[in-house]
Amino acid sequence: MMKNTPLARKLGAFVALSEAELSVLEGLHKRRRTFVAGRDLVHQGQSDQAAYILISGWACSYKLLEDGQRQIVDFQIPGDFLGLRRVVLHLSDHSVEPVTDIEVTEVHVSDLMKTFSDTPRLATAVLWAASRDEAMVVEHLINIGRREADVRVAHFLLELGARLTLVGLGSKTGYACPLTQYLLADALGLSSVHVNRVLRTLREAGMVTFRDGFVTFDDYDRLAEYAKFERTYLDQVGPLLA
Amino acid sequence: MMKNTPLARKLGAFVALSEAELSVLEGLHKRRRTFVAGRDLVHQGQSDQAAYILISGWACSYKLLEDGQRQIVDFQIPGDFLGLRRVVLHLSDHSVEPVTDIEVTEVHVSDLMKTFSDTPRLATAVLWAASRDEAMVVEHLINIGRREADVRVAHFLLELGARLTLVGLGSKTGYACPLTQYLLADALGLSSVHVNRVLRTLREAGMVTFRDGFVTFDDYDRLAEYAKFERTYLDQVGPLLA
Repeated sequence: MMKNTPLARKLGAFVALSEAELSVLEGLHKRRRTFVAGRDLVHQGQSDQAAYILISGWACSYKLLEDGQRQIVDFQIPGDFLGLRRVVLHLSDHSVEPVTDIEVTEVHVSDLMKTFSDTPRLATAVLWAASRDEAMVVEHLINIGRREADVRVAHFLLELGARLTLVGLGSKTGYACPLTQYLLADALGLSSVHVNRVLRTLREAGMVTFRDGFVTFDDYDRLAEYAKFERTYLDQVGPLLA
Repeated sequence: MMKNTPLARKLGAFVALSEAELSVLEGLHKRRRTFVAGRDLVHQGQSDQAAYILISGWACSYKLLEDGQRQIVDFQIPGDFLGLRRVVLHLSDHSVEPVTDIEVTEVHVSDLMKTFSDTPRLATAVLWAASRDEAMVVEHLINIGRREADVRVAHFLLELGARLTLVGLGSKTGYACPLTQYLLADALGLSSVHVNRVLRTLREAGMVTFRDGFVTFDDYDRLAEYAKFERTYLDQVGPLLA
């Protein structure tokens, strides 16, 4: 039984899915594949007709610019789609690389479109989740543009926590996090030395500790206040559509 | 009859809407309101339970940061929702200000949720459109971070053209555009003097002219090539869901 996949948990936060809808979702989880850390699975501009649902592990989507710079746009965690925008929105804008070894389900675009057509409530949930993820990306990028480094890092760690909590992989206590300081730096527009210094400051202030692959919220409420973190979507109780 | 609203045209690009669905959409267009240029209609952090559908005129969404800086996140054109994320995604992140006098339809969140629940295909179309718009915002912000000013302006003018074409207000020839160089500057992270200089360069190169409230594509294909503009979603023929 696959009805407790991260994707089902995530979509359940937006739309109360029926047994029938959960079965359809399960039907999408047929073709399992694994990819090793560091090898691209979606290339910028690629016209492949498949997207992936992340089952376990972490990935990152990034954009390579003409001058060779790399901007990490977002990290993907279990329950997230990889390459969804490319196949359904006809936007081929990112490359996706596994941060850890990952397990995914491959979904062909024709199967996905048929599912959307047959079960529009499921489509609503998927697009709702995608839209929320995009909104968070906007936050990241404003983050990079305008916030101080300390607040930027704090906000980022809180947001990852909120997303992981939604799929049962985190809480207000903390979460397991495989990101290196190099990856954090590429996502936040900071040097890794700077990231390291900020993390020490936040730890010494008794707010959050990132060490040995774990983020521990030492004082969640104070950190949230410090980062002016918008907690509304964390506090959401029950799905938005019955 | 309202079946030819900009919103109906826009959603029709994603989902082939039935007569019944078009009628439901029409039902949302009941409470007309007008707002004058320059006066906020959605305040950052406001907990109002209404969103708006833009019927005519242009608006911009922006974020004020603690230090008083203003970042324009996106412009809204007819057919776009204003404040949708705030009411359905529980993200209260932007303020919205009319760029011109605008006409909108006010939609209460309870009506919107009922519509989504009763006609999930309509919800799919709305979220699909929202998701595509978000994806474009991501492009803007990468734009700001990494592209040269000339390419940045060119890309921005092409993208606005693509969005306006979708709702019947633009073509590969050009479009009416009420934006000042100050607004362009705030959206693109440039000074207005710099925007002015870039526009002159692009005009003298015979690619695009922005003058007296009109953007004229003097050589659309060359401009698109110059800006590495991803035209896939422009070339889309027919809705994605039958």
